[in-house]
Amino acid sequence: MGDLKQILVVKFKEGVIVEEIVKGIKKMVSDIEAVKSFEWGHDIGSNEMLTQGYTHVFTMTFRNSDDHAAYMGHPSHVAFATTFREAVEKRMLFSFPAVVVKG
Amino acid sequence: MGDLKQILVVKFKEGVIVEEIVKGIKKMVSDIEAVKSFEWGHDIGSNEMLTQGYTHVFTMTFRNSDDHAAYMGHPSHVAFATTFREAVEKRMLFSFPAVVVKG
Repeated sequence: MGDLKQILVVKFKEGVIVEEIVKGIKKMVSDIEAVKSFEWGHDIGSNEMLTQGYTHVFTMTFRNSDDHAAYMGHPSHVAFATTFREAVEKRMLFSFPAVVVKG
Repeated sequence: MGDLKQILVVKFKEGVIVEEIVKGIKKMVSDIEAVKSFEWGHDIGSNEMLTQGYTHVFTMTFRNSDDHAAYMGHPSHVAFATTFREAVEKRMLFSFPAVVVKG
């Protein structure tokens, strides 16, 4: 089985400074060894029909489900999750073993 | 600027054989040099509130917007896009320059 991926799709509340949130995530992922990789992006597709108003995507990769569990239970994650949820108007979350076809 | 990512989140129509669709995508991405990488997955989070019924995630990476444009206009993509859309009940699409924080 390949890496475990977690893709979080978010719309932030009005007035939220996304840079501050990203700074918090950066700190968190550098604290937590179990996070293999992390990247994010701001949608530039600008197609409301296809994004349903969600604007940001956060992708985290874990080597296996043990590392994912370690991340979920890590104090830095638990602490930051509250801050994050308060900043978010709506969110979607997908978790899956990544099947790499090319790359 | 980093890679350009495209994340497609999908719910397939009842009766669609997902393996057939994936086979079609595999062929397409091997045809199209402009696709840097491609991976996909079947959500195992099983949290309807967080997935809104979407079940599959497809992630494509391009080196830059020229490669993305080349992909969009490639005959193999154009041909397959019709098949894909017919198989899909609903879809969301996010496009963004990937900001790599860890990895």
